[in-house]
Amino acid sequence: MKKILAFDVGGTSIKCALYDAHGALLEKWQIKTDKKDCGMRIFKDIAASIRRKLPQLDQIQGIGIGVPGPVTGTFVETAVNLGWKKIDVAKALQDALGEAIPVFVENDADVAAYGEFMAHKKSLASMALLTLGTGIGGGVILDKTIHRGANGVGGEFGHFKMAETGNRCNCGNTGCLETFASATAVVHETMRKLKAGTPSTLSLDNINAKIIFEAAQAGDDLALAMVDKAAYYLGRAIGLINTALDLELVLIGGGLSDAGDFFIDKIRKHYRENTFHVVKALPIERAVLGNDAGIHGCMEVVRNHG
Amino acid sequence: MKKILAFDVGGTSIKCALYDAHGALLEKWQIKTDKKDCGMRIFKDIAASIRRKLPQLDQIQGIGIGVPGPVTGTFVETAVNLGWKKIDVAKALQDALGEAIPVFVENDADVAAYGEFMAHKKSLASMALLTLGTGIGGGVILDKTIHRGANGVGGEFGHFKMAETGNRCNCGNTGCLETFASATAVVHETMRKLKAGTPSTLSLDNINAKIIFEAAQAGDDLALAMVDKAAYYLGRAIGLINTALDLELVLIGGGLSDAGDFFIDKIRKHYRENTFHVVKALPIERAVLGNDAGIHGCMEVVRNHG
Repeated sequence: MKKILAFDVGGTSIKCALYDAHGALLEKWQIKTDKKDCGMRIFKDIAASIRRKLPQLDQIQGIGIGVPGPVTGTFVETAVNLGWKKIDVAKALQDALGEAIPVFVENDADVAAYGEFMAHKKSLASMALLTLGTGIGGGVILDKTIHRGANGVGGEFGHFKMAETGNRCNCGNTGCLETFASATAVVHETMRKLKAGTPSTLSLDNINAKIIFEAAQAGDDLALAMVDKAAYYLGRAIGLINTALDLELVLIGGGLSDAGDFFIDKIRKHYRENTFHVVKALPIERAVLGNDAGIHGCMEVVRNHG
Repeated sequence: MKKILAFDVGGTSIKCALYDAHGALLEKWQIKTDKKDCGMRIFKDIAASIRRKLPQLDQIQGIGIGVPGPVTGTFVETAVNLGWKKIDVAKALQDALGEAIPVFVENDADVAAYGEFMAHKKSLASMALLTLGTGIGGGVILDKTIHRGANGVGGEFGHFKMAETGNRCNCGNTGCLETFASATAVVHETMRKLKAGTPSTLSLDNINAKIIFEAAQAGDDLALAMVDKAAYYLGRAIGLINTALDLELVLIGGGLSDAGDFFIDKIRKHYRENTFHVVKALPIERAVLGNDAGIHGCMEVVRNHG
């Protein structure tokens, strides 16, 4: 039986995985992302890793690769975290391997959405994933396929402008969803309130998103207000997504989703209270694959298109 | 050569058209919408109209029909304006005709979007249409196809919640786009300001959207502020749409689009100022088909899927 290889390329490490042709995970490992030579070493490192795991390249059905940048065809326009500019990723990896093995290239957020979509217990046609971490990423699946967008940049829910004014976002705008509802935003806003003297069991000496969510679950008023504010903006943003797209499912992933139904129930409540009634029935659930969503999606892209 | 029939069913009249198989318009007419018998007379009236125009039914390649309600398959879930509930529109029309001619059923806003999409001078794959009238309707084209959504209710941009608070919308929510940027909203807000004594060349005795836009073009400060406010919310809403979907084109139709570039330039400006930079290059243009968008879309649905 042939094998499938999956690589989820990030700015500090590359998640690697080997699957059988049925999609069963055989092995997982990581390699460091070497950004020297404008990120060109990445291809040699992935190729060397492949040759170590599978010296007989004819055993490979296909390679799926997720990259942090806009993808059109097999090209990445730009991946600032890696130093890449206008690179045919499939060709670069084939050149490094010295073999024309099929390589499938997708944006990392898109491929994470596709991984969660394929891993979901129900067979659906449409879904969006919101990944709540340092920022907010997203991906859209329509007609059982990744919606890449015209320039490879669909699903950028973190940059939904939710309010006329607000804190400055890294993108340069104000009022972006990720300035209200990312882990970073929740921590910053909580620290601001603590510094202003808002009473709380929380302390500025020891604070992160996990601690804030635990304090909220224990009934701390400030922490509860902070979590609820994030949930409100997420509920409204999902309302916008679904008023435009009428999906079958929205999944919440990333670090903040670890709080589970305690957090997702609040998102559901704000979604229902702020969304056009005809699309209110949308299920909002927690993503299940965690950090493996990307490699799983890469594997499924190869399986379904390879 | 066979013929194509198109029917755009509205609450007061049904727009009807006959096309040749190449899509050339041969004849256009209207019939009254008779809502008696829970809207069931509509099918008999359309069938009678078809038999008058084309007594030989074997000349018909297909019939396209746009309806004011959510469509799944050939079913309409509900069309409150017509009295329809859970009707197989294709079967009802075939029964009324006594012939199993192919009937294609789509939502009226979707089919208008598809009509504009097919009439556009460039060959594209993705587009959204916003129709600015009494309310705000919309449709989304992805991969050259109508995006119906899971329940047949995609593209409801008029019910994007743009602000935490605001005037009550007909849908029951507050802060909906159509409470800021529909023709109705522009007129209401202008009247409110006039009643409050805001200086203006406008008069409460003689006011509608067209008059407000003309006053704005003539330099009236109040009218300019009202037009700019609508353009601001539309620019932000298009920003949300495109941050999610990364489209090739957005078109503006409906009564307010008659103001042309005077209005659309303001929408473009607010879009650029409020949208994630990677999708800023989106072209925003005026729709070209006016009230014929629906029948044109019905014809194109038959041509491309018939």
